[in-house]
Amino acid sequence: MDILELITKKRDGKSFKKSEIKYIVDKLLDGDIPDYQIGALLMAIYLMGLTDEETEELTQQIKDSGTTLELKGIDRPIIDKHSTGGVGDKVSFLIGPVCASLGLAVPLSAGRTLGHTGGTIDKLESIPGVRTKLSSDEIERVLLECGFVIFSQSDEIAPVDGLLYSLRDATATVDSIPLIVSSILGKKLAVETDGIIFDVKFGSGSFIPEVARAKKLAQGLVDIANSCGRKANALLTSNNEPLGRFVGNSLEIYEVVKSLKGEIFKDNLWEVSLAVSSAMLFMGGIVKDIKRGKELIENSILSGKPLELLIKMVSTVGGDVSYLEQEEKLRERSKITTIKAHNEGFIVRIDSRIIGELVRNMGGGRMRTTDEIDPYVGVEFLKKCGDEVKVGDEIALVYHSDDFSIEKISSSFIKAIEISGDKFFPEKIVLSRYIGKNEWSSFD
Amino acid sequence: MDILELITKKRDGKSFKKSEIKYIVDKLLDGDIPDYQIGALLMAIYLMGLTDEETEELTQQIKDSGTTLELKGIDRPIIDKHSTGGVGDKVSFLIGPVCASLGLAVPLSAGRTLGHTGGTIDKLESIPGVRTKLSSDEIERVLLECGFVIFSQSDEIAPVDGLLYSLRDATATVDSIPLIVSSILGKKLAVETDGIIFDVKFGSGSFIPEVARAKKLAQGLVDIANSCGRKANALLTSNNEPLGRFVGNSLEIYEVVKSLKGEIFKDNLWEVSLAVSSAMLFMGGIVKDIKRGKELIENSILSGKPLELLIKMVSTVGGDVSYLEQEEKLRERSKITTIKAHNEGFIVRIDSRIIGELVRNMGGGRMRTTDEIDPYVGVEFLKKCGDEVKVGDEIALVYHSDDFSIEKISSSFIKAIEISGDKFFPEKIVLSRYIGKNEWSSFD
Repeated sequence: MDILELITKKRDGKSFKKSEIKYIVDKLLDGDIPDYQIGALLMAIYLMGLTDEETEELTQQIKDSGTTLELKGIDRPIIDKHSTGGVGDKVSFLIGPVCASLGLAVPLSAGRTLGHTGGTIDKLESIPGVRTKLSSDEIERVLLECGFVIFSQSDEIAPVDGLLYSLRDATATVDSIPLIVSSILGKKLAVETDGIIFDVKFGSGSFIPEVARAKKLAQGLVDIANSCGRKANALLTSNNEPLGRFVGNSLEIYEVVKSLKGEIFKDNLWEVSLAVSSAMLFMGGIVKDIKRGKELIENSILSGKPLELLIKMVSTVGGDVSYLEQEEKLRERSKITTIKAHNEGFIVRIDSRIIGELVRNMGGGRMRTTDEIDPYVGVEFLKKCGDEVKVGDEIALVYHSDDFSIEKISSSFIKAIEISGDKFFPEKIVLSRYIGKNEWSSFD
Repeated sequence: MDILELITKKRDGKSFKKSEIKYIVDKLLDGDIPDYQIGALLMAIYLMGLTDEETEELTQQIKDSGTTLELKGIDRPIIDKHSTGGVGDKVSFLIGPVCASLGLAVPLSAGRTLGHTGGTIDKLESIPGVRTKLSSDEIERVLLECGFVIFSQSDEIAPVDGLLYSLRDATATVDSIPLIVSSILGKKLAVETDGIIFDVKFGSGSFIPEVARAKKLAQGLVDIANSCGRKANALLTSNNEPLGRFVGNSLEIYEVVKSLKGEIFKDNLWEVSLAVSSAMLFMGGIVKDIKRGKELIENSILSGKPLELLIKMVSTVGGDVSYLEQEEKLRERSKITTIKAHNEGFIVRIDSRIIGELVRNMGGGRMRTTDEIDPYVGVEFLKKCGDEVKVGDEIALVYHSDDFSIEKISSSFIKAIEISGDKFFPEKIVLSRYIGKNEWSSFD
């Protein structure tokens, strides 16, 4: 067996044996494959695909390339959640404490921002003092004490994935369903849980905008997780419009605190959070009927317990909880530019991708992994899709640094927002749930 | 414009603009593309293809990456010939002096052996003293004095091709028609000639065994050469059986001398050499009817002029011509193992690839570009396809070193040679000639 032979095999559309996938991963880890061969192999895989059996084996090998997090001391049902990433996605900060308050243990490994979507770890770090690199023992202890924990992916978990990802990024082979599935699952399976809910996003803010491809990704994630012996469901949710009213690291934490204080808008953020937590509670056996989650969740938030748990979690990992107790501190430091309506009618589109790119360009995200982030920049929406506006009405507040060009902000908003005289027909936010074996169920 | 964008473009099946191909070649030459991106790009090109326009531009860019050989002092029609490579292919050594004796100037740039086929330069160098690295002035002078010249591809001609080829070789992307076409033509167009005859081989000894793919390569070579303003024709010739009676570096020169002395077998070597030289004489305007070449060529050989020219050419580049004058010196040094028939009937198959691989393994070829060659090892066929044999009849003599295993030789021959009771129906050696614009003509 040699790499050239395996490149040729995939190039010609043939399938790898398990031993061949193991060979590739081992050689990758040893640094034994020349870069040009890795590039050729990734492109051959991108264009010729991987079968489910190959994807499963690659997932296992990625998982087995590093350590696992066992969480043996936890006696609650342990349910994980993973989002494929969207603009304004602060769902983890809501479903973590809510599900914890209702009896689940929720260990959320998370990543940093790259591209136009935010990263949960960067958002968490906008609270001064927070540590996100936690040891296995620490993760287990926080989970025991708070019922949930958000922590950085450790370098010891699935190290080959980091290697592969950076090469995929540089060779235009990121956007391959089997490679995405094995990359996500290789890491997720390394954390021993009772099940995983995948929040697979479609729409302008998702890296997979097309519903059909997002469906394929959802199916891949659940089917391969199941064949690796892990319970899993996937929700297909829209990110055409940013989730909630705030986009930007500290602003999103601000919105989380407001929501957990009960100032909940019944908007797309709420719909997704409700669906995700219902699915988690159902999977963990806390509710026997997935539609019974809603009341439980609303009552839990009104009880104040989830906010307490969030504060406790942040405090346990060293964070300055005054930022949660006086949440205005999370949005008071920037220069503010107001965006007004140029014409009248209904807002029919707020393009997630354009808003996400604007926030990134203002310093809220990264162009390179080494870039520093400004946690305070972002956008607050005063109006959202479906709202009626008159000329001059305030639509959004943009929080930015003194030297960022107001022209760039305006031109982004001109492209991102569409106002039409026609009545707005709201899209379905949670499209459906994939429960495996080719079965989809709705949320209505 | 950046490379990642261009990889993505080709991955998605789109065509490059001329400026984009120039950008890629420039960056390659500057060493500015990371290896993993070259690997991914080559695989995307392999799997998604190149249009004729892209292939033409790549060819021009490969040509323009180095110097050109102008040959301004030559007043005869200058006709080049290129073979895609086959086992026992010593056609250059026959058609060079023959066409020179009939009024053409024939500058033959050539390469070394790699894989199972021989290399013209290695064959020439089996004559002690011969220099094959010639300066432009020297090439022109030898061409003026002898009418033909065989020389190594200079590193200054199309340098980007060498770079690309070694990377294609390591990434399983050699076997792509547009990449093969631009590689061959990029070098050939850098030598200013009035036209080129391509000898495109199919059959077991060719790197493209299938007739249909060999046809595509023939069309690609001629069409792209034409669109670059160069006259070209391609012959489709069989290499199912080794060409002629000898395979191996010095043994093939031996066969050339014998042939030019008039000891011509009317076999596949003769058929291909006749077709190639007729096509060259026709293209150069020496004969007005391609079928009139035969008599001229036979008479030329009988006159002894081509042998004189070969001796003169070899002498001019420093070779010891005693090896041509007493050609037995070219086959007297090795240990000889005789291969005999195990059953009776007609020889219906002598597999070129297996014979080529045997000769390479005996030391007549290379596994790596740095390997030394033993010029004296090889095979002499006493019988060829169509000959009738009885059990125990001698079929071939194998010239090898003392330490090469006789078992390996026997087992190669058992696989390579098929004897059948049925009468043998000879295959057509020169299948057809491609003259451009989708027109094929036969040689009958």
